[in-house]
Amino acid sequence: MTGLSRRRLFGYSGATLAAGAAVGAGLVSVAQAGEDHRSADEEAVPFHGAHQAGIATPVQDRLHFAAFDVVTDDRARLIRMLKEWTAAAAAFTGGHPYGSAAGGLGEAPPDDTGEALGLPPARLTLTIGFGPTLFEKDGKDRFGLRAKRPAALIDLPHFPGDNLDPARSGGDICVQACADDPQVAVHAIRNLARIGFGVVSVRWSQLGFGKTSSTTPDRQTPRNMFGFKDGTRNIAGTDAKALDQHVWAAGADGPSWMAGGSYLVARRIRMHIETWDRTSLQEQQDTFGRTKGEGNAYGAKREHDPVPLDKLPADSHVRLAHPDGNGGVRILRRGYSFTDGTDGLGRLDAGLFFIAYQRDPRKQFVVLQNKLAASDHMNEYIQHVGSGIWACPPGVRKGGFWGDALFS
Amino acid sequence: MTGLSRRRLFGYSGATLAAGAAVGAGLVSVAQAGEDHRSADEEAVPFHGAHQAGIATPVQDRLHFAAFDVVTDDRARLIRMLKEWTAAAAAFTGGHPYGSAAGGLGEAPPDDTGEALGLPPARLTLTIGFGPTLFEKDGKDRFGLRAKRPAALIDLPHFPGDNLDPARSGGDICVQACADDPQVAVHAIRNLARIGFGVVSVRWSQLGFGKTSSTTPDRQTPRNMFGFKDGTRNIAGTDAKALDQHVWAAGADGPSWMAGGSYLVARRIRMHIETWDRTSLQEQQDTFGRTKGEGNAYGAKREHDPVPLDKLPADSHVRLAHPDGNGGVRILRRGYSFTDGTDGLGRLDAGLFFIAYQRDPRKQFVVLQNKLAASDHMNEYIQHVGSGIWACPPGVRKGGFWGDALFS
Ligand code: HEM
Ligand code: HEM
Repeated sequence: MTGLSRRRLFGYSGATLAAGAAVGAGLVSVAQAGEDHRSADEEAVPFHGAHQAGIATPVQDRLHFAAFDVVTDDRARLIRMLKEWTAAAAAFTGGHPYGSAAGGLGEAPPDDTGEALGLPPARLTLTIGFGPTLFEKDGKDRFGLRAKRPAALIDLPHFPGDNLDPARSGGDICVQACADDPQVAVHAIRNLARIGFGVVSVRWSQLGFGKTSSTTPDRQTPRNMFGFKDGTRNIAGTDAKALDQHVWAAGADGPSWMAGGSYLVARRIRMHIETWDRTSLQEQQDTFGRTKGEGNAYGAKREHDPVPLDKLPADSHVRLAHPDGNGGVRILRRGYSFTDGTDGLGRLDAGLFFIAYQRDPRKQFVVLQNKLAASDHMNEYIQHVGSGIWACPPGVRKGGFWGDALFS
Repeated sequence: MTGLSRRRLFGYSGATLAAGAAVGAGLVSVAQAGEDHRSADEEAVPFHGAHQAGIATPVQDRLHFAAFDVVTDDRARLIRMLKEWTAAAAAFTGGHPYGSAAGGLGEAPPDDTGEALGLPPARLTLTIGFGPTLFEKDGKDRFGLRAKRPAALIDLPHFPGDNLDPARSGGDICVQACADDPQVAVHAIRNLARIGFGVVSVRWSQLGFGKTSSTTPDRQTPRNMFGFKDGTRNIAGTDAKALDQHVWAAGADGPSWMAGGSYLVARRIRMHIETWDRTSLQEQQDTFGRTKGEGNAYGAKREHDPVPLDKLPADSHVRLAHPDGNGGVRILRRGYSFTDGTDGLGRLDAGLFFIAYQRDPRKQFVVLQNKLAASDHMNEYIQHVGSGIWACPPGVRKGGFWGDALFS
């Protein structure tokens, strides 16, 4: 792998490949003039560490989420691919292409597809997760992993109101790509799919364009497609104590390979915005128990003031989801808005791609969602149409690879 | 309409709507602390002027393009809606919500859906166009406009290789929303659809995420999904002479209501990136007649050097599309990359949403596309799957509305 950054790559100008023969391995590292000033948001997020990046990391602007199915039964090939993926992920998140983007001497396809050349790292993070079907599928233990399946990696129960599309649910492996530039996130997923050719195939993928949950309470809270501030009361990425208590799996929780990891639940939630847009402001605010403008809870003054639960409507979303009514349960939300064009009826296929990280979904997501599915006023305006759960291993140490402890 | 910017709106904190009764029309204009520093890219692009914004305007980062069908035969209602749209477009592009986002006293739905509150204008532009079917549909002159149809607003011919999906083609009216923040572009289209309820319905829409054509030759040229720089030789938004010659319709060209307007051709072009990614660098470069790294034409040294046409392969895209081989024909390209998830075969539904502006499509787009469709080497890797053509009227003068000269 080259040590050149994407910015510095491809500074050559061979008129034809023959004329630029020195190009193959080398690539003259002429930086294009005027490209070397980076703002903080263009920086790279470190790939290696105790935890995977993309969980406690301040939420980036864009998402490309992909669910893969493993199409081989060959454990060794799967491991080989995970090693290649890890190397590629380290390169991409550092702002480098994978291998040589110029591809040998021109007879071979370039290793990297190239559309992110010249772009900064854009705070790209790549976060991997392993789904229940990787451990056992149709009763078959394809990769000798059955015994290593964490008890917390349950098959999610059916919740009232669920209308799940199997083509948008599940997947043996997921990769969450987040970046401030969608081209960088899409490039990463596309190249992982390409590297994995013959081993995995994309089952489904989802683009998200508007972060809906802040993990940085000091910044302005983003708004979701209902026009409400979202992420006001979320676990902050800097709150080490809350992360340890609610997000990172501990060694004692289950299999040791998950220590320092986290469980990801994703739900594709369609929002019926045409209906919503025709309801009154009062009704909209009652749905959440918060105002639309400031975002303060009913009975409180400012957005971040404590929530006086008894002042909120009994069926309001915040009252039902708040930790005080749920024995202190919290999750780290990291979802994105989506619009996937228009459906046959001229309605925007829009909503929230909900992503939550937690230490144990049985005690966290399932508890909350059971309650919300049963009673949430918001159910008049939403429908859960896709779902998935994955065990995200801890961070990769230098020299290691994604899931090495699982496969060792 | 309020004169408050979105940033300044909603500074109130009524715990319930009753408590915030002053809110209805007023909205206390308390700016949220620390939000009033804007970078140049957050600025507003002027809405009024001789030409519509969004054509010569430096290309923004994101696109939401919507094609609408008019669902009423009532000319007066259509005009009323166009007036409302114009007022809303002026508000949105200025960074303001439409009407009151807090909606009367709470019994009525808010006028504005609210998800762009607190966001800067993000250089939003909204550009309207009128399709052939607005002038005549199934032989019917619904709005008394038949006689005003410009000859240049042709029904596009069938080109070899076309595989057009009618559900992604055509439309009586189009609106191109471009902004540096997708939430701002999506918000605008969504609210126009909402305002137009009962008069228009969305026929199809397209999100684009990576601009593929620069109109600012002094900045770094963006790369398309094939990894190549795109927009190297495009009409610059600052080149008044080229704009007059190739982009703006003149009074003598056709009906006077189009003087200062432009014709928009959009093509949804699927790119078979999995196939492309398996071809050699040599083959990729031969396809365009330019190198992938620097982007120089074969036989030239640097990206922006003149193109020595005879050095390029005869079937290369650039050789075929270059003005020198086409009697000087030029277009202003303003397309965006798209990825709309994955198709049933695990392939990325990705490509280029091609947008071109020109003075007369008969002499520009059609000439080029006939040639490309017949001979372009690139045809092995692409397919045109959607299409549309619209007449974009000139800019709105203060007090006027979108298309006022057409309806007068
Ligand atoms: C389209 C679906 C959803 C929308 C639009 C939505 C929106 C919101 C909003 C506006 C808030 C208040 C601001 C905040 O504290 O972040 C909120 C809070 C919250 N939501 Fe959701 N939410 C959705 C789905 C879910 C789901 C599926 C869960 C979990 C199963 C969930 C769990 C929470 C929690 C835990 C809080 C914080 C409550 C508190 O501590 O006060 N939400 N949500
Ligand atoms: C997926 C489809 C397409 C791709 C990937 C593509 C890509 C490119 C690239 C990489 C260049 C060279 C850099 C530049 O000067 O911008 C280029 C140039 C050009 N393309 Fe395309 N293009 C596509 C479709 C079209 C279509 C449909 C047309 C018009 C019918 C067109 C017209 C042009 C023109 C006029 C030039 C400039 C040629 C010159 O002046 O040298 N392109 N295109």
